[in-house]
Amino acid sequence: MIFTVFGTGAVGAYYGGKLAKAGNPVNFLVRSDYDVIREKGLMILSPDGDIHIAKPSVYNSPAEVPESDVLIIALKTTGNGDLRKQLEPMVHRNTALLVLQNGLGMEEEISSWFPENPVLGGMCFICARKKAPGVIEHQDKGSVTIGCLSEEDVILRNEITEVFNSADISATAVDDIREARWRKLLWNIPYNGLSVVLNSDTRELMTTASSRKIVEELMLEVLAGAEACRCPIEKEAMVNMLEYTEIMTPYEPSMKLDYLAKRPMETEYMYAKPLQAAAEAGYEMRKVEMLFRQLQFIQDRYI
Amino acid sequence: MIFTVFGTGAVGAYYGGKLAKAGNPVNFLVRSDYDVIREKGLMILSPDGDIHIAKPSVYNSPAEVPESDVLIIALKTTGNGDLRKQLEPMVHRNTALLVLQNGLGMEEEISSWFPENPVLGGMCFICARKKAPGVIEHQDKGSVTIGCLSEEDVILRNEITEVFNSADISATAVDDIREARWRKLLWNIPYNGLSVVLNSDTRELMTTASSRKIVEELMLEVLAGAEACRCPIEKEAMVNMLEYTEIMTPYEPSMKLDYLAKRPMETEYMYAKPLQAAAEAGYEMRKVEMLFRQLQFIQDRYI
Repeated sequence: MIFTVFGTGAVGAYYGGKLAKAGNPVNFLVRSDYDVIREKGLMILSPDGDIHIAKPSVYNSPAEVPESDVLIIALKTTGNGDLRKQLEPMVHRNTALLVLQNGLGMEEEISSWFPENPVLGGMCFICARKKAPGVIEHQDKGSVTIGCLSEEDVILRNEITEVFNSADISATAVDDIREARWRKLLWNIPYNGLSVVLNSDTRELMTTASSRKIVEELMLEVLAGAEACRCPIEKEAMVNMLEYTEIMTPYEPSMKLDYLAKRPMETEYMYAKPLQAAAEAGYEMRKVEMLFRQLQFIQDRYI
Repeated sequence: MIFTVFGTGAVGAYYGGKLAKAGNPVNFLVRSDYDVIREKGLMILSPDGDIHIAKPSVYNSPAEVPESDVLIIALKTTGNGDLRKQLEPMVHRNTALLVLQNGLGMEEEISSWFPENPVLGGMCFICARKKAPGVIEHQDKGSVTIGCLSEEDVILRNEITEVFNSADISATAVDDIREARWRKLLWNIPYNGLSVVLNSDTRELMTTASSRKIVEELMLEVLAGAEACRCPIEKEAMVNMLEYTEIMTPYEPSMKLDYLAKRPMETEYMYAKPLQAAAEAGYEMRKVEMLFRQLQFIQDRYI
């Protein structure tokens, strides 16, 4: 199974690096760090043991990338504006697209551009950050759940899941990708936004009574939004999430890092799309909406 | 009519100063700036013309304050913890209490301590700030609406309103003090809290689309909360408030100043009490609640 990883931020480099380390052929399409990665390779610093891919197959233009079986989309959704144009040269007759982005609705959008191709989504539960060009720091977690849009692609989904597991990635196939997306939002919506608006990290958000209460109330809204969208999630998932976030290494979510670096934040797919989906299904996530608007306000100031 | 003003921040000094300037006997009970005001008097800088009370009657202990007809409570609600003890020496048989504080429920609380005394509330629509000890900067507005808890005090309410008007203060008597309190909250709840959480002023909150939308949504919740509490307010009040706040001189509400000076914020009476009242009446002001908790989080960091 030949992979191409489009976007070599923390997520793309981590999963692509693990796949490559395990011997799978992996092409990396790199935008900003091409020269560094070509020269020094890809370094993943991890408590599970560092990984160095000394000579990765690196490309800096979609047109140059060889045909692959699975095209992993691992760039931030803030770059999705011209994604279709970027993908076109890399999507061949049998190319499957695996979306490792945060948010809701990316798979449906991508599938509308390439209706003949299998589209899958991977929900990554990972704490990682880019430390320097070509250097990724893996801090905690790392599992991924993989789903597909169409029933026809269940076998492919299972095959990819198997390859991931063979590469020492804890991967699980899930039946309902939409439900899995909402499950991921259950974490992303509170922690990403609040870490920016309250200028905080996961530990402080969890150990301060007022912010912990907001986290819980946002999660309850996400559960209700998911249920309205016919993706009911058991409340125990929320309880578990609160518990593990409390004990995990204090973490600054990706949106906080984007904010600190004055990069655009992933508000569109992480907030606007879920809000719209829930509202269309009849439920208003009012606190989530307020958080979304606060993020817009903050971003308007620096962009 | 003899007045005592308890608390000589912006509100107490402005209204007390106007009353004194017009020739009414006014005692000022001052906590922190006693020496300065005693020596240099009270200065009110105002676009309507500066006012200097050269020799105000200043006291620094409740026990020393002479008996008065109207005791104006103009300190911040963050000082209400020991308010009863502070008031006791100044509340005589016929003393009326006029509460010029922000929030909800102060009059009921004070009336429970002094059930035989008339309790009134004044809702001050004023932009003013303390510039230095004994120096108040009046920036904009200045009107006040005055209501009383008990029907028995309507004549007294009208008399006080008249004295205020004679002292060049635009004062209006209102029939329903509870409704007037909610009407004031319609402004206070969005602008005070958001100016802190978004580190902003009224102008920026009104001219940025995202924050203006939050202001409007918070106001809609306050209207719904007021209605649940049987204090319906016409929606036009909200429209007018948005309009005048947009064109008024950019203003940092008192809570923003408290935040910047690392003083406690008036979250209890401005947020917790209205939230409780609305919830008990069957309406959850969800966005207001989130704003409240964000303010608690921010205050926990510096207090």
